[in-house]
Amino acid sequence: MSDSDKVWTAGMLVIGDEILSGRTADKNIAQVASWLQVQGIRLTEVRVVSDDMDAIANAVLALRDAYDYVFTTGGIGPTHDDITVDAVANALGVEVVIHPEARAMLEAYYADKPGGLTEARLRMARVPEGAELIPNRMSGAPGIRHGSIHLMAGVPHITAQMLDALTGTLEGGAPLLSETVGCWSPESEIADILREVEAAHEDCQIGSYPFFREGRIGANFVIRSTSKDVLASAVDTLCEALGEEGFDFTPGGI
Amino acid sequence: MSDSDKVWTAGMLVIGDEILSGRTADKNIAQVASWLQVQGIRLTEVRVVSDDMDAIANAVLALRDAYDYVFTTGGIGPTHDDITVDAVANALGVEVVIHPEARAMLEAYYADKPGGLTEARLRMARVPEGAELIPNRMSGAPGIRHGSIHLMAGVPHITAQMLDALTGTLEGGAPLLSETVGCWSPESEIADILREVEAAHEDCQIGSYPFFREGRIGANFVIRSTSKDVLASAVDTLCEALGEEGFDFTPGGI
Repeated sequence: MSDSDKVWTAGMLVIGDEILSGRTADKNIAQVASWLQVQGIRLTEVRVVSDDMDAIANAVLALRDAYDYVFTTGGIGPTHDDITVDAVANALGVEVVIHPEARAMLEAYYADKPGGLTEARLRMARVPEGAELIPNRMSGAPGIRHGSIHLMAGVPHITAQMLDALTGTLEGGAPLLSETVGCWSPESEIADILREVEAAHEDCQIGSYPFFREGRIGANFVIRSTSKDVLASAVDTLCEALGEEGFDFTPGGI
Repeated sequence: MSDSDKVWTAGMLVIGDEILSGRTADKNIAQVASWLQVQGIRLTEVRVVSDDMDAIANAVLALRDAYDYVFTTGGIGPTHDDITVDAVANALGVEVVIHPEARAMLEAYYADKPGGLTEARLRMARVPEGAELIPNRMSGAPGIRHGSIHLMAGVPHITAQMLDALTGTLEGGAPLLSETVGCWSPESEIADILREVEAAHEDCQIGSYPFFREGRIGANFVIRSTSKDVLASAVDTLCEALGEEGFDFTPGGI
């Protein structure tokens, strides 16, 4: 396998009791997943764990050992239940230190705010020793990168700022190309066609996503491949097969 | 520890390439988490994996060994990429069989629909040998229970039907009680108070959730405990501490 064939992979860890209790609906999985797709990195596994030192540490190590990159969200704020930095430092066997650049960012941000840079707020400058910062224009408090591990905020619009800062900075693989073909028919009627088209094309995956819209049943088929030619051939074959069956398919889909 | 002290736990597995690619935002984690909370069962870990036999099998076994219950969503439909039943049967070392009751349900459901019960649709009657069904009034295709493992649909409103059918049928522990206290102040100013209140109350967790609303910064604090008395004491202590600090707190919160 040449270097250019390498599929770069990522694992993601969502940290927070509020997700596991159902109080907060996670929005970071979809956000990080879409962003990684565009970077040409394949998100292969996600885990969600509670605000627990051992649970965080064990999951970070498992994901780090299995994938090229790890992205975590949650637990890097100023309160006592924000323990991601401590858990990751524990897992890596390094100390927690105040990052001088992060302290400077927070001092600047809180200079004109009531209370200034309190001890609690200074917690947000704590990093596992050896870490670099991920900038965040939104609230001053930066994300943290340590080797392949990226620690980001739990609040989705702050995570978005951190992802934006990381865009184009990661070594990635070939982008996974995709096209969508839709049809107004239950997916159960198309199952055999999908299986045949996928089997006839190596390096090609077809996902089937039923929907109910305007009172009608339909399905979208997402064809994915890292090869433009394979993708085009699979799309053509599928469209032809659907057309012969008399379905009103909609290239482009939702 | 007496039987009544046992904390019943669950792990959840979300199955589907569409979640990991970012194409579909998962809605089942929040739904299953909220439902488990009400059942008195603590959701302790969630994993998301792709439509891959080994990934599904490994995750199901890891979660089954770690928690009292396992709930999966996704991959039990009629198409070739729906492989959850096969992966779980593989993991458990049992055969895949057609469940006669599931076949009867599907025959009844498709009796008056175009195409009838096709081979593809009959796939939805396949279960790991030894499984029971979880009824689903919505689309005929049932969920599947095998021991502690519950296989449910990926489409959220169908999953909701299956959860509804399971309500009250699981052996559970003491419900986790919670109250919310809110204040119009950055959480970073309250961090010390939260830490002290939590430390003073055993069997009590406080989560801190910042918000931006009506142009102002605030935070809600969710106090959780399985003991009504501990919860009441923690809420009182926190309200008193916030009150002395001069914050305008809002019992009941968002």
